[in-house]
Amino acid sequence: MPRQLTEEKVFKDPVHKYIYVQDETIWNLINTKEFQRLRRVRQLGTSFMTFHGAEHSRFSHSLGVYEVTRRIISQFERNGYADWPSEERLLCLCAALLHDIGHGPFSHSIESVFGTHHEEWTCKLVLGDTEVNRVLTEADPDLPNKVADVICKTYGKEIVVSLISSQLDADRMDYLLRDAYYTGVHYGTFDMERILRVIRPFKGHLVVKESGMHAVEDYLMSRYQMYWQVYFHPVTRSSEIVLRKIFERAKRLYEDKSYEFRFLIGPITGLLERRMTIEDYLTLDESYVQMIITQWMQETDSILSDLCARFMNRRLFRYTALDLLDPALEEELRQGMRTCGIDPDYYLEIDYLTDLPYDVYRAGNEEESLPIWLLNGKNELLEISRKSDIIRSISSIHGGKHHIYYPAELLAKTDGCLSPELRRLLEQA
Amino acid sequence: MPRQLTEEKVFKDPVHKYIYVQDETIWNLINTKEFQRLRRVRQLGTSFMTFHGAEHSRFSHSLGVYEVTRRIISQFERNGYADWPSEERLLCLCAALLHDIGHGPFSHSIESVFGTHHEEWTCKLVLGDTEVNRVLTEADPDLPNKVADVICKTYGKEIVVSLISSQLDADRMDYLLRDAYYTGVHYGTFDMERILRVIRPFKGHLVVKESGMHAVEDYLMSRYQMYWQVYFHPVTRSSEIVLRKIFERAKRLYEDKSYEFRFLIGPITGLLERRMTIEDYLTLDESYVQMIITQWMQETDSILSDLCARFMNRRLFRYTALDLLDPALEEELRQGMRTCGIDPDYYLEIDYLTDLPYDVYRAGNEEESLPIWLLNGKNELLEISRKSDIIRSISSIHGGKHHIYYPAELLAKTDGCLSPELRRLLEQA
Amino acid sequence: MPRQLTEEKVFKDPVHKYIYVQDETIWNLINTKEFQRLRRVRQLGTSFMTFHGAEHSRFSHSLGVYEVTRRIISQFERNGYADWPSEERLLCLCAALLHDIGHGPFSHSIESVFGTHHEEWTCKLVLGDTEVNRVLTEADPDLPNKVADVICKTYGKEIVVSLISSQLDADRMDYLLRDAYYTGVHYGTFDMERILRVIRPFKGHLVVKESGMHAVEDYLMSRYQMYWQVYFHPVTRSSEIVLRKIFERAKRLYEDKSYEFRFLIGPITGLLERRMTIEDYLTLDESYVQMIITQWMQETDSILSDLCARFMNRRLFRYTALDLLDPALEEELRQGMRTCGIDPDYYLEIDYLTDLPYDVYRAGNEEESLPIWLLNGKNELLEISRKSDIIRSISSIHGGKHHIYYPAELLAKTDGCLSPELRRLLEQA
Amino acid sequence: MPRQLTEEKVFKDPVHKYIYVQDETIWNLINTKEFQRLRRVRQLGTSFMTFHGAEHSRFSHSLGVYEVTRRIISQFERNGYADWPSEERLLCLCAALLHDIGHGPFSHSIESVFGTHHEEWTCKLVLGDTEVNRVLTEADPDLPNKVADVICKTYGKEIVVSLISSQLDADRMDYLLRDAYYTGVHYGTFDMERILRVIRPFKGHLVVKESGMHAVEDYLMSRYQMYWQVYFHPVTRSSEIVLRKIFERAKRLYEDKSYEFRFLIGPITGLLERRMTIEDYLTLDESYVQMIITQWMQETDSILSDLCARFMNRRLFRYTALDLLDPALEEELRQGMRTCGIDPDYYLEIDYLTDLPYDVYRAGNEEESLPIWLLNGKNELLEISRKSDIIRSISSIHGGKHHIYYPAELLAKTDGCLSPELRRLLEQA
Repeated sequence: MPRQLTEEKVFKDPVHKYIYVQDETIWNLINTKEFQRLRRVRQLGTSFMTFHGAEHSRFSHSLGVYEVTRRIISQFERNGYADWPSEERLLCLCAALLHDIGHGPFSHSIESVFGTHHEEWTCKLVLGDTEVNRVLTEADPDLPNKVADVICKTYGKEIVVSLISSQLDADRMDYLLRDAYYTGVHYGTFDMERILRVIRPFKGHLVVKESGMHAVEDYLMSRYQMYWQVYFHPVTRSSEIVLRKIFERAKRLYEDKSYEFRFLIGPITGLLERRMTIEDYLTLDESYVQMIITQWMQETDSILSDLCARFMNRRLFRYTALDLLDPALEEELRQGMRTCGIDPDYYLEIDYLTDLPYDVYRAGNEEESLPIWLLNGKNELLEISRKSDIIRSISSIHGGKHHIYYPAELLAKTDGCLSPELRRLLEQA
Repeated sequence: MPRQLTEEKVFKDPVHKYIYVQDETIWNLINTKEFQRLRRVRQLGTSFMTFHGAEHSRFSHSLGVYEVTRRIISQFERNGYADWPSEERLLCLCAALLHDIGHGPFSHSIESVFGTHHEEWTCKLVLGDTEVNRVLTEADPDLPNKVADVICKTYGKEIVVSLISSQLDADRMDYLLRDAYYTGVHYGTFDMERILRVIRPFKGHLVVKESGMHAVEDYLMSRYQMYWQVYFHPVTRSSEIVLRKIFERAKRLYEDKSYEFRFLIGPITGLLERRMTIEDYLTLDESYVQMIITQWMQETDSILSDLCARFMNRRLFRYTALDLLDPALEEELRQGMRTCGIDPDYYLEIDYLTDLPYDVYRAGNEEESLPIWLLNGKNELLEISRKSDIIRSISSIHGGKHHIYYPAELLAKTDGCLSPELRRLLEQA
Repeated sequence: MPRQLTEEKVFKDPVHKYIYVQDETIWNLINTKEFQRLRRVRQLGTSFMTFHGAEHSRFSHSLGVYEVTRRIISQFERNGYADWPSEERLLCLCAALLHDIGHGPFSHSIESVFGTHHEEWTCKLVLGDTEVNRVLTEADPDLPNKVADVICKTYGKEIVVSLISSQLDADRMDYLLRDAYYTGVHYGTFDMERILRVIRPFKGHLVVKESGMHAVEDYLMSRYQMYWQVYFHPVTRSSEIVLRKIFERAKRLYEDKSYEFRFLIGPITGLLERRMTIEDYLTLDESYVQMIITQWMQETDSILSDLCARFMNRRLFRYTALDLLDPALEEELRQGMRTCGIDPDYYLEIDYLTDLPYDVYRAGNEEESLPIWLLNGKNELLEISRKSDIIRSISSIHGGKHHIYYPAELLAKTDGCLSPELRRLLEQA
Repeated sequence: MPRQLTEEKVFKDPVHKYIYVQDETIWNLINTKEFQRLRRVRQLGTSFMTFHGAEHSRFSHSLGVYEVTRRIISQFERNGYADWPSEERLLCLCAALLHDIGHGPFSHSIESVFGTHHEEWTCKLVLGDTEVNRVLTEADPDLPNKVADVICKTYGKEIVVSLISSQLDADRMDYLLRDAYYTGVHYGTFDMERILRVIRPFKGHLVVKESGMHAVEDYLMSRYQMYWQVYFHPVTRSSEIVLRKIFERAKRLYEDKSYEFRFLIGPITGLLERRMTIEDYLTLDESYVQMIITQWMQETDSILSDLCARFMNRRLFRYTALDLLDPALEEELRQGMRTCGIDPDYYLEIDYLTDLPYDVYRAGNEEESLPIWLLNGKNELLEISRKSDIIRSISSIHGGKHHIYYPAELLAKTDGCLSPELRRLLEQA
């Protein structure tokens, strides 16, 4: 049975000032070892290589999403909105707190190489034999399944899902503010209190009253800026690429059988063999990954050791931005690198714009992301981009440039790896 | 020969907004592997267990100290102060940037167990065969020695040393602001621009003009608050104690010879045997320490594995604050724990107030910390606490309480470990 | 001859932290009675009726514009840009400081009724027999004319004019930040330091380097939000309308000759007769206007006294927002008011969207506003909206609604003033 | 009967982000003409002459005190403290909102000359024939008397009085934060949320739990800094002195009968004759006072017109700070001024330290200010300065210097007004 704490607990938080915990279940979830592990996974992966302040953890972010959800619900209760299903409070809070619990270290790079999915692991941790599962079950035997449903967006009540994952959810609200705070950029900030004042439950949906449209524009504009200025920063992309190449190389060497690793301890074997236990997964945090990469700087495979040294000492790949990229040129570049003894499989990467997972505002329901509904004076719902020119404009932007990533040393090679034309192309600012 | 960069480089920093690099030497120092390693050492050690935002690194702090120093010097130059030795600019900037380069992971705990000193390692890294040394030497063959002298406070010009380490130095100014920002507490903030406006060089000293006295009071009051609210927070102390106990246990087991570690790889051996190479030292970062502790959760020694699990899963020691502590009671407690099979050597710690290294403002020169000088209208120097009641008052405070740290489970033991009196004492809030 | 101050003077400013004065001419200009008068003219007119914090004066703003200009120039000098005409420094600073010196109280309302123009008055004060003129002349006999030319945008060098008035000038940068600070809204803030880092002089123009495009987008988005959330706020519009009606009524009564004012003292006579001396103009500040309106609450003309009491006691006109406004309905409303004895000339106003002076970003040169130029890697200039989808989108927005303003009491009238249809229309939220 | 508003009203406030109004009585009080008049009285009187941002009104501050009180009570209710007399909620809110309603323009100067008291006027406005009285009476016929009792500190329940006026009340909390915000100084800020978390009702008192002691230290330190850096700033004192001299001169001329004022209209006559009606008092706002002073610049009495011009054009008195002031020297200075034809009664003022009304923390009950109580773990109350060294130290400070104020022109007089010694004394920085 869920219980209130006899005394409210408080966390000092730079973004929300204080985070308040009133439920024993929430307090106990925070103290599980699975949740504590989130302290050892950075919220922004390798972004700290670009923005040195961005060392904040998924632990902080998860507490933040919980707090935003708590404040939204508390505002719903204070206003006595009839359309708010008050029995769902604890479920919402638990799902908010746990929504990222399956996130591994440097997810972008590792998931793409090994085909793992943090959503799957979240379910395993919520439903499996874990401390988290025991705490949830103690509060209500149905709670683990419900929490998993909400996080997987299969729960029956849209409004509950909307709070945790929609275009205007507690997750995005926290991470924009938090990432802006820790990187030190200004553009991710928006007036959250103002957003809280204009949202409300309405016939099963989470809606924004019409007069709040400009507040939502401001929020989406912040998101747009954060994507182009922080999340897609080419230096961050460069570090992600080096990291991915490390894992691709290690995987190839491992599958090759003939190569003998000097260092292969801990959950990395499970990862390489794609059979990780929950226990393995919990050990696989960022300090483990950094330690392995440090050790692999001593491997005999020169590609692996070189890539690892690049990552640890921040000798990342250089990049060149281009408006257009001619496929013939790309092939020529690849060929030139080979001529000079640089393997393009591990030392060349091209980011095409359309590959970047920009979380642009979408009017429709596709990709599981619920749109933002405006509620007008006549109690009619209207998808927001039909009303706002700004939002329609942001939604249709596929801006930016292509980027080529390669070792800076390539430009120093003089033995004909690069044609003068290619060299000029790469050397432009 | 020192050179200017053709284009100024910029780092986004939450505390100082931007950090500006104009000298090639500074840029090259930042890119050495020894300096990049500071990204993997947290500025506040285990404080992140109390304040979840406090994940910021010594890398950030070092850049910050450099930037504060750069601004002070730039203000001196703009005002054309005759008493400023302008030829010392690059030396000051290098010393500011590198003053913490020898810091290891969780220094408080590790240094006390193994007797290492980060100051020593700073000198080794500056003077030894390192990238840092090569960059400095390239600018000026005397630079490594000068930098080491400034950091060790043996350099001949007091004003140069004062900028880097005195009661009102760039180091303290940055860490108070930075630690306040990342923990989210407010009390560490003070008006740095105001301080910069009231300090100046005067006959070899760094002085504060008299009208700036209130600005200094505000700064020292922030420092006082940060010590009692953040740096001495009992939860942080608890985590440092657990960490220290881990290393004490490991050291005992290692020296014992009969115990066989399941996991003993990397620089830990060097640390245990007190013969670390520079290469070892560079590998000894916080991700390495966290990984070792994770592995040691599987050790067969139950004390070691238990302490390690406590640290990783944040099951720290409970604490009780006392105004006074009767030595007889302490002995009784120690005895009671033994009776119940809990080794007090590893599970009990008492913080006596006077042991805490509070960086209180001191009027004198002792302990190598230069005092703050006021310059009055008649060009006379006066030590600031002779003028300010507030500062005199802060300097004389030895406030706070004693704290006893022990496992929370001790209170659940019912088989007579604790007398009713002792139990009551420990149970008070 | 221009002189430096022996000691830099400093003003504490909430927006820019400190404002630094180094030139004696600037210091003397600030101390003229014409400049001190700006303390008695609010920057945002009647906006304080909507945002109670918005009491800041044109004095603050003028200092702010000066400071932003000073920082831009100082950055140009630090970088040694060859295209910066350094001999124009003092002229730029004077023009920045004085650009609003001719602003009268509540300009929007008074200028529209009496046909005065603050630009004209600025020239009169700079060129006429004033303390300001004397200070400028003392520095350089040509300075008054040059300052007037810059402010009137007829000065020969585009870059000088651009700093003070263009789409990305010191004026707009200061007022957006300042108005946001004093109203307490968040959306007017943008990262000014970032803008300063990306602008530079180039062949006589003020340009933005291409990589700074997102910074400009952020700034223009702030401007868009400030217009719709603050400057066009219907409560502010309502107070401006009441104020304008007061002056229209007073003008009518004065021209009528038959009406005898109980109170008519000071510069108001000059204003009504359109022959104000410089001395009159300097006396015409907001405290004077508020005092007159207070006195006119006792006038025998019931329309005048009622409007004055509404303004002083903040019993403003109610408003209704409409998507469309049928001219027939408007005529019906006007007729209905007359039937009930309410004179629509003084108690009804309709804001059509297109009448609002939204300072939208414009790509062209029209209306004297210089566009924003991007400088790409090949040293080509490009008008920014050709590159940025966001800016193109903001530029084309003519959003919002029409507003009808009328006394709230009208809705209480039951004797057939309003048809049921009209009443319903007005009563909708 | 008190009623809730059907929809919460909101004011945007820079200090508290939003101010929330839920009670119809509060909403109606804000809309009275007596409360609206507070928009025309600055919170900090003439401080805007020193800190140009300090134009904020008593209207803003009064809303702020209301909001802080509302948050404190809401925290008490949320925690369900048994010692909180919940029936006093509306009374507390009304008293908080109205506590300054009797404040006239530039109170410091005017009250000292004419012997008026704003507390008296507050009572008159609450109990007399006013809109405020009608709104209160409508809610509860006893409410006006109760509100007056709370404001006069004669109400029977200490905790109610404590919220509005004690050493840790909503009034001080708002003004420190607000004055710091609008002046732009940093030192007035403290962590109000932290204070709210540590205060609670206990046996009729408002108390602070012991662990909150450092939070109170921080708050009192902010107060100390604000007094010495802002409230007692010598430039502000200088403007207050000029203003007071204006009124002293006008009073003398008026009482003299032989002098005929060119301008004497509105409530000034009532003030001079000490028989003001409520209607007069409401007209006596700062725009009225500034307008009168502007008009008096044309008076034939040269002292009056000169002082008025000094005030309007900010040609204030110069000041010299002294550690000690010899009475003989003072007499000599007075005599010298007379010799040179400068009347020391209007052109000389000396601030002795002990005359300054520093709101230092006092441990006792004197001067009607309730002390701050700490509640320790054993439920004992302890006056805070007995526990905190810092607070004891702040309480005993009577720092600062004496200041002499006089016209700067005095130093230019060469005909023997000042002995060389006196001149040297005045000329020192």
